[in-house]
This record gives sequence, C-alpha cells and structure tokens, in this order.
Amino acid sequence: MAFRRHKIAVVGAGYTGATVALMLAQKELGDVVLVDIPDLVNPTKGKALDLLQTGPVQNFDAKIIGTSNYEDIQDADMVIVTAGIARKPGMSRDDLVATNAKIMRAVSEQIKRYAPDSTVLILSNPVDAMTYVCYKTTGFPKNRVIGQSGVLDTARFNTFVAEELNISVEDISGFVLGGHGDDMVPLVRYSYAGGIPLEKIIPADRLQAIVDRTRKGGGEIVSLLGNGSAYYAPAASLVEMAEAIIKDKKRILPSIAYLEGEYGYHDIYLGVPTILGGNGIESVIELPLLEEEKKALDKSAQSVQLVIDICNR
Amino acid sequence: MAFRRHKIAVVGAGYTGATVALMLAQKELGDVVLVDIPDLVNPTKGKALDLLQTGPVQNFDAKIIGTSNYEDIQDADMVIVTAGIARKPGMSRDDLVATNAKIMRAVSEQIKRYAPDSTVLILSNPVDAMTYVCYKTTGFPKNRVIGQSGVLDTARFNTFVAEELNISVEDISGFVLGGHGDDMVPLVRYSYAGGIPLEKIIPADRLQAIVDRTRKGGGEIVSLLGNGSAYYAPAASLVEMAEAIIKDKKRILPSIAYLEGEYGYHDIYLGVPTILGGNGIESVIELPLLEEEKKALDKSAQSVQLVIDICNR
Amino acid sequence: MAFRRHKIAVVGAGYTGATVALMLAQKELGDVVLVDIPDLVNPTKGKALDLLQTGPVQNFDAKIIGTSNYEDIQDADMVIVTAGIARKPGMSRDDLVATNAKIMRAVSEQIKRYAPDSTVLILSNPVDAMTYVCYKTTGFPKNRVIGQSGVLDTARFNTFVAEELNISVEDISGFVLGGHGDDMVPLVRYSYAGGIPLEKIIPADRLQAIVDRTRKGGGEIVSLLGNGSAYYAPAASLVEMAEAIIKDKKRILPSIAYLEGEYGYHDIYLGVPTILGGNGIESVIELPLLEEEKKALDKSAQSVQLVIDICNR
Amino acid sequence: MAFRRHKIAVVGAGYTGATVALMLAQKELGDVVLVDIPDLVNPTKGKALDLLQTGPVQNFDAKIIGTSNYEDIQDADMVIVTAGIARKPGMSRDDLVATNAKIMRAVSEQIKRYAPDSTVLILSNPVDAMTYVCYKTTGFPKNRVIGQSGVLDTARFNTFVAEELNISVEDISGFVLGGHGDDMVPLVRYSYAGGIPLEKIIPADRLQAIVDRTRKGGGEIVSLLGNGSAYYAPAASLVEMAEAIIKDKKRILPSIAYLEGEYGYHDIYLGVPTILGGNGIESVIELPLLEEEKKALDKSAQSVQLVIDICNR
Repeated sequence: MAFRRHKIAVVGAGYTGATVALMLAQKELGDVVLVDIPDLVNPTKGKALDLLQTGPVQNFDAKIIGTSNYEDIQDADMVIVTAGIARKPGMSRDDLVATNAKIMRAVSEQIKRYAPDSTVLILSNPVDAMTYVCYKTTGFPKNRVIGQSGVLDTARFNTFVAEELNISVEDISGFVLGGHGDDMVPLVRYSYAGGIPLEKIIPADRLQAIVDRTRKGGGEIVSLLGNGSAYYAPAASLVEMAEAIIKDKKRILPSIAYLEGEYGYHDIYLGVPTILGGNGIESVIELPLLEEEKKALDKSAQSVQLVIDICNR
Repeated sequence: MAFRRHKIAVVGAGYTGATVALMLAQKELGDVVLVDIPDLVNPTKGKALDLLQTGPVQNFDAKIIGTSNYEDIQDADMVIVTAGIARKPGMSRDDLVATNAKIMRAVSEQIKRYAPDSTVLILSNPVDAMTYVCYKTTGFPKNRVIGQSGVLDTARFNTFVAEELNISVEDISGFVLGGHGDDMVPLVRYSYAGGIPLEKIIPADRLQAIVDRTRKGGGEIVSLLGNGSAYYAPAASLVEMAEAIIKDKKRILPSIAYLEGEYGYHDIYLGVPTILGGNGIESVIELPLLEEEKKALDKSAQSVQLVIDICNR
Repeated sequence: MAFRRHKIAVVGAGYTGATVALMLAQKELGDVVLVDIPDLVNPTKGKALDLLQTGPVQNFDAKIIGTSNYEDIQDADMVIVTAGIARKPGMSRDDLVATNAKIMRAVSEQIKRYAPDSTVLILSNPVDAMTYVCYKTTGFPKNRVIGQSGVLDTARFNTFVAEELNISVEDISGFVLGGHGDDMVPLVRYSYAGGIPLEKIIPADRLQAIVDRTRKGGGEIVSLLGNGSAYYAPAASLVEMAEAIIKDKKRILPSIAYLEGEYGYHDIYLGVPTILGGNGIESVIELPLLEEEKKALDKSAQSVQLVIDICNR
Repeated sequence: MAFRRHKIAVVGAGYTGATVALMLAQKELGDVVLVDIPDLVNPTKGKALDLLQTGPVQNFDAKIIGTSNYEDIQDADMVIVTAGIARKPGMSRDDLVATNAKIMRAVSEQIKRYAPDSTVLILSNPVDAMTYVCYKTTGFPKNRVIGQSGVLDTARFNTFVAEELNISVEDISGFVLGGHGDDMVPLVRYSYAGGIPLEKIIPADRLQAIVDRTRKGGGEIVSLLGNGSAYYAPAASLVEMAEAIIKDKKRILPSIAYLEGEYGYHDIYLGVPTILGGNGIESVIELPLLEEEKKALDKSAQSVQLVIDICNR
C-alpha cells in the first residue's frame, strides 16, 4: 500500500480561502487546489504561488495550485467552500441570499461531478442556508455536508472572556448554538474558564456584554475594516474542523448540521454540538435546553428557515 | 525574576504586516503591536481583532493590538517594518525610493524614540536602501538594523528546485547574495538537494531558467495578482529571521547587513550570509567569490548605492 | 538589548528528568542542564548527549549538558526537580519521606546558592511535602516554589474519559484538588466533555470507576511496569507548567501551592487551582466547595500535614 | 469516503520503541501498537498507558496500546522494528548477529502474516543485515523494507559540527554512506553549514576528529550510559523516516536500501541516499564517488556481507 497525501479543494480564493490554504499547508493536512472564477484565475494562481513559496521557509510540503477549472479538483477528499459575495458594511446577511445561493448551486454541481466522495465544509454566507443548498444540490449524505459558524462564534466569545479575565485562551471554553450572528444562542451556563463556570467569576452584566459583543462579532470587524470582513479567525475555524475530520479526532465542535428530529427540527441546517471525525459529522449531541434557550433556538431556526425558503424559490 | 513576553511592533498593517503578526503569534514569539497611519487606524484595529480571535482556535496566547499611536510600541524588543508604498505592475522598485525613504525616516524616528533598545527588521522596498535609511536615522548599532531579501529569494529558488526535482522543500538549500530582484546574485555552486550540488542533477539550462525565474520572482506574482504584491512568503521570511534572533538560534541566513569592508564594500547595506542570533547580526560570513560572482556583486552594490544616493539627496 | 535563551536546570536525570529535558528542547523553551549525583555523572552525560543529537532531526536548538556539578546551574531561570527515590510496587508514598526530604533539602540548598532568582517546579515524591521542604529551605517567595500533581491527575482522568466516550482528548476537561494519589479530590461537577458536564453523559457508576482509577493511576502503572514508575505523562505535565510560566501564558492549571488562608489552610502546600504566568503562581483560585468536597480536602490536607511533620522532625 | 488514522506497529517496547511511540503520537502520524514478548507484556502495557496519558497534556490524539499478541498489528500500515538484544559496553555489533537474526525472522513472519501491505522500518542491530533478513523473510517488495542508520549518523555529525561552529543545528547538513558505526563512510565534501562546504570553514584535523567521533557515536553513548544504548536520537531518526513516507514528502534521506546494481553492489542492503515518499524508498540516488570513497564503501559492503553470511547460515 502506498501512502498518499489528501487532496483538499478550497473554492473561493479571496482572503479567507487563501488563508485556509495557508493553514492547511502549515499543518500538512494535504495538497491544496485553490479555485476561483475565470476572471480571477491569475490572482488565484498568484496567491497559490506565494503560498507555495512559503513552504521552504516554514518547512511544509504541500502542492498548492490556483485554477478556475473544476477538473483540477478531481477526486478531492475534502472541499472547503468560501465562495460568495462578502458582507459589506450595513448589509444584512440576508441580502446576500439570492446571489450566493446561485453561486452555491453552481459550485455544488461541480463538487458532485468531480469530487463525489468528498466531505464538504462550508463558510459561505448566509451559511446555514448555503449548507442546506449544498446538501440538496450534491445529494451527498448529511454527514458529509457541514457548515461552520459555531467554532468562530466560540473563538470570539473565548477571546473576549480571556481578555476580561486576563487568562490564557487555552483555558476558556465557550458554547453556542443556533444560527450565526444575531441569531446565535450562547449557552453561558456551559461556558468555563479553567473548568469554572463563567457565571461564578464574571459579573452578570459584564458577561451579557460579552455575549452581545460576540453576537455582533462579525459586524464589529466589518465596521472596523470598512471594506471586507474577517478572514483569519474564520479560516482557522474551518481548518480546525477539517483537521478534526481528516485526522479522525472525534472532536466535540459546534457544526451546522442537517437535523432530522434532533432538538425537534426537521429538514433544516442549524448550529448544534457535534462529533467531528473521519466520517464528518459522526453524531449530533442533544442537550436538554431551558425554556428560554429553546425559545431562542426556535427563533434562530425560524430565521434560518426564512432564508432557506428564499433559496428554494 | 519574572518571565515576560517579548513585545514586537509591526509597522505597516497591510497584508504583509498582518501576516507577519499572524505568524509571530502562531509561534508565540511575543505580543504584537500593529501600527499604521491614522487614516488606517480602524482597519488596523480590525485586523488585530481578527488575528486575536484566531488565538483560541489555534491555541496561541498573544496580545495583538492595532494602533496609529507610536506610544504603543514603547519598549518594544523588536520592530518589523513593512511600511511603504507597494510595488505596482510595471513599476520599478526604484520609483518607490523617494516616497518610501521619507516614510522610513519618519518611522525610524519613532522607533528611535520609543523602542531605543529594539532590533529592527526591514522589508520596505527598495529594501537595501530603506535599511540604510533606518540605520542612519536611528543611529542604532549595525547589528540591530537588518534587512530582509535573501531568505525570500532563497525560498523562491528552493520552491522552483523542489518542483523541478519533485523533492521535499525541506531538502533544498539555495544560496543568494546581493540586492533583491534583478540584482540578485545566486550562488548556484552553493546550492544543493539533499546535500548534492544542484549542478550535478539539474541540466545547466534548466538551472539557469530557475535562476532567472527567481530573479523575477516578485514581479511574477505582482503580474499575476494584478493589484498588489506577494505577502505570504515575505512575511514568513521576516518571521524566520525574527525567530532566529529572539530564540538566539545562531542561524546562518542571508541578511541585508551593513558592511564595513566585508567583500570590499564600505558604508552600504547589501545582502550577504550572516549569523543571526540574540544580538541580531552576530557576524557576516565572507566567502571567496569567483571573478564573475564578484563582478555581479559589484553591479548589485552599485545599484544599491544609486538608490542610497537618491535617499541621501 | 540582546535576546538570550532561558536556562533551565533539571535536577534528577532519571527517565522523568531526561524526558523533561526532551520536551523542553522540543518546545525550544531554553537550554537545559541535567543534574544528577556524581555516581551517575556519566549516564547523565550520556543521556544529555543522546538528547542533543535529537536536535538536528527534530530541528530544535537547545544546548543540553549533563553534570553532577551544581555550579553548572548558575543563574538558571527555572529549576525542575525530579530527584528522589522512585516509588516501587507495594511501597506507600509516605515511605519515601525521610530519604527524599533529605535529598530535597540538599538540592534546595544548591538552588538557593546558584539559582537564587529561579522559579522552582517540583515533582519529587511525596510531592506536597517535598515542595514545602524546598520552600522552607530556599526561602524563596511562595509564588516561585511550585509542585506538580494536578496536571498529571487531570491528564489521567481525561484519558479515561476520552476512552469511555471515544472522544478527542482535546475536548475533555477534568478538575482535581488536594493531594496526589489516594488523597486526590476530583471535582467531577467541574469536569466536562466539549463543555457538557460529564455527570450528564456518563452514568454515575462509570464515572465513579473513572475517578477511582484516576486516584490509583500512578499505582496502576507502577504495577504494570514492575520496576519503576510512569515518566512520560509526569514529564509532559511539568513541561506544560514550565511553558505556562516561561511564556507568561496565565493558564489556569492545578498546582501544589503554598496556602496562607486560602480554603481555610495555613502554612501548607496543597493542590489547588492556580493561575500560572511569568511570576509563577500568580494567584490561587478559591472555589466554593460542597460540604463533602471540603471534608475530602480536609482529609487530604491532614495527610499532607502528617508527611510535612515527618519532614520537620 | 471516510478518513481513517494510520495504524503503526512498533515491535520492541524498550526505550527506543517507547520513544518512537511518543514521537509518532506527538506528530499525530497514527495510532500505535507497541508489541513485545509475552514476558514483557505488562511493562509494555504500562508504557503504552503512560504514553496515552501524555495525550491530554500535549493535545495529541492517538490510541496507544501495548500487547504481546501479533494479531493486534492486523492491517498495520507501517511496522517499525526496534526488537533485538541491545548492544552492551565492549560488545561488538557482530556478536549480536545470531540472536538478533533469529528474532528478526520470527518478527518478520508475523509482519508478513498480519500486515502484508505494510512498509517496514528497521533499527534492530546489526541493522544492514537485519533489514536483509526482514526483506528475505517477508518477501515484501524492496521499496517497503527499509533500514535506518544514516539519519542517525548524520544527526550525530551535525550535532558535533553545530557545536564546533556554535551554529544552529538547522543549518548543518552532513552526508554519510555505507554501514553503521565503524564502517560508516562520511562524505565530508557533501557536508555544509548554511550551504558553505565544511572543508572551507573547519580545519582539516578538527573535521577529521568530528568524523571519527561520529563513527564511534553509538559507542560513546554506550560507554557513558554504562548500561544500555542511545534511544532518543535513534527514535527521532526512525520517526523522521516514517513521517517522510506517511506524508509522502519525497525527502532525500539516507536509508539502508536493497541494491540491485546501484553503486556496483547486488543482493545486499547498504546505506545510500534515497528518496523517501509514499511508496517507501522511491529511488536510490547514485553519486559519482572518488576512488577512496568507493574503496571505503567496498569495505563497508564487505563487512555487511560477512554479517549477512552469518545470518544465512
């Protein structure tokens, strides 16, 4: 038996996609194919070449190519989709739906054609609906079509808590459910610093401020940048999920997962705690929710459903 | 005695500067202060925040802030300067001189004021001359003012060789002297794959093609991107030099060093092999050169001198 | 300012000490001086040389020397003490007291003399009492004399939980207080898998079995080995504490800390949650305990006190 | 397609085998099965458990088990053999032949039976002959049966050079051919510091002293330890080869390879430069040798042949 490197396609070679490629290569998780539209094929090749030249400095081996030809993703083991129009200041995520659903459908058709056995990770916004679109278009089993939002939301929450307490980020453990952004359902009672429930060491009003800031975390960066949105932490979040799957680590991470009855929802993609391993989403973890949490999750699910409905039109 | 983190200022928060910050944080080499001009203070803060939020995902602890206030670099142990106007397609590096020398002088004044004990690494273009300007403006000892070009040029060379031979980048070892870009003096006879001289395993014309491509390596990416220049490999190169110094590794790396007689040059900054350790450039390694190599280096030195002269006007 | 490497002395060059040296070097936390008694000076030099020769393979730079001369630890920034007679099968930890207290006193005198500004980490058994002996003998401030037991106990607990649930060890977070081994006070209600309290996902009897196995975790390995005790996980635990301090990470980790009223105890070293940063133990975290937990902790403190009393004779 | 972890069997659970397991796990290269004889099954289980408990501290996921039952290596992707009697002070490597050949034959039969598609790496002494025995016994294709000696010899050489020059080990690149130990053929003219030939920067007598010390590098540690032989650098060397293969890195590393005409030898295993990738030894690199180098290599080959002849009796 010959050992072979995994092949990972990254669709969308904007700043997020290129940063995903960097982090995949730094971890030597596989060879990377960066894909973008024909109009951007040269910049995509330029980024790939720049990334490739980083290898000798950081001692990583990974072939990294840029392309606009989907044939180049043939037999990819994993596809990470960051394609789509970026959110602009003042723009609601929902405004993105129509355009991005169309893009996602086209991308999904190519994935289905060229990488039929791949596991797909999706970041494109609005991510819950886009993941749903990919699932329906590819017809892949649900465990292999996965959206990212909770890892990033948790990272933001953890950052703010670490800053509040002046503690290592390694020891903060937050927990979110539901949709991305405004519809996020933070479960503060499942959030800790060094194992100590945050509610015991951070005053309620400060903790609420952190929750609110997390909820608007994407928007905060969009406003600051003025032009574009966050890409370092989003890329790292995707790569953490990719690593959990490729290395079959069986990590407990929040994913946007297809639900068939879990938490009482059907035929919807929603952010829930999952086990990520070699089979993608190996299971959804169901937690008993308080009434107010369930209400917040219902509201989140309704928002997602509205966007899915737009996609289905 | 208390252990404390190093403080590293990164001046210029464009893509290179932000990527430098990422890689410093990934290696936990210190806390990072990203500095840019007041007009860009918000994007700078936005990038810093995005980078900070990457910490919980990748398990690194580093405070990362964005600012336009040089007071924030107070007592920095190291300053990495990426500021300056970026090279655009068709633009010669020399066209950048006037503007960038002015920027470099202003930045150097601030470094002198707020971080008088720091070691300074410079990427700003044209880098040989900019490093000279920084040296003269700060009045720092020569070992603490260092330019980057050879690590990047070598990385590009190694990438092309690795591709040619289908070999791990870890086992390719190239060698360049002189100025950046067109004036680069590659020493092919000091370049190897797994210890085997490249001249023995790559046909002369192929090797020459690789040398030529390396020489134009920056321009190749500028042309592909259409708008902007390489930043991943340049950032990694700076961080490799920073790591060698901060960890006192005593690595043999090409640096742009101030010469006082070495290789026959005086009062000039030029790319030469150096030992990088806790004291910055701990020594310049002088190699016997063939006549043609010395001629090429002379030519490179003359080019650098011309640019320095423009700066001195 | 010149950057310099930290100097770390490891006293006791048995398997634990040598493994500590390996892991310090792998993380490039500093140069390492392995110290053992004159009778073992050659084996100590042999291990140091073998470790040094690992550097080129794993790309780490660290000077590693073996010695029996305490002058070689002059000005060490950190001292890690693993010296002492190892626990043998059937031997109670308390049997070790008399001999090891004497060894610890001698070692502490040398540390006081040659490395008066160092931070000291102690593993020697019985560790609570040995840390107390070191504190009293060196006269160092309490934040700079720290014992290890809880990181290891937690690692064992987490291992068993990860195995029980078939989940990544990265997502298990256990919590222990009190003395090492039989007197350990596991706080199961502060233990989680992916943020979910273990009590909700592991049946009570299974969880109790895991607690019991953890309590006897050291003995289990002693029995299996037949000759000697665990050293990989103990070494890794010490190095995690060392890293938190050297990098000023401000991690929340269980340490054996000197108590002056915390949890109601005085003039004793006991395992409690602490913040480890550049100043060593930067603070002790006091948690409200349930009555039964306080009782168990009292019992643990009494056991420790008995051993300290033996040391004080 | 599901991602699955590689399965790596380590036969021989002495200090080298256990350290190999540690380093494989630290790099998350796969799950590890430590195998030793039934008499040592408990210590083997003890070491595996200690290693497993290191995972939560160092954040690696790897199942590590100890066993004496070869069924447990079923379908291993790679087998690393460290079994055999260790060299003792004053004992020539050749004295080990009879016993170790018998052990190797028995181990190889089990590998053939339970892991017929595996790639086999061998450290057991005398390693050239033992690799030959494994090749003949398993009947595996030659690219999948590989011995280690040159990576270790090079590491030792590089260590001594780095010390001599006070330079980072990352920048030293040595080169050896031939058998392990006394029969090693160092190719100093292919050895460099930062790309500069060592002959130009180290006086001839100093360089010869380093060569001599390298040749006796194993014996130096055996003498110092008094009881046992080196295991850290040997283990790291095996794991570097394993990583090159598992990640299909196509590294140029010295391996003990089966020769069919290369360098003029037939039906022998000898240390030569090779390319290690997903197919094991993907090719042998033939270098033109000077007359004296060829003579030394002939002598080395004769020594190996003598030992192989003993094995064949």
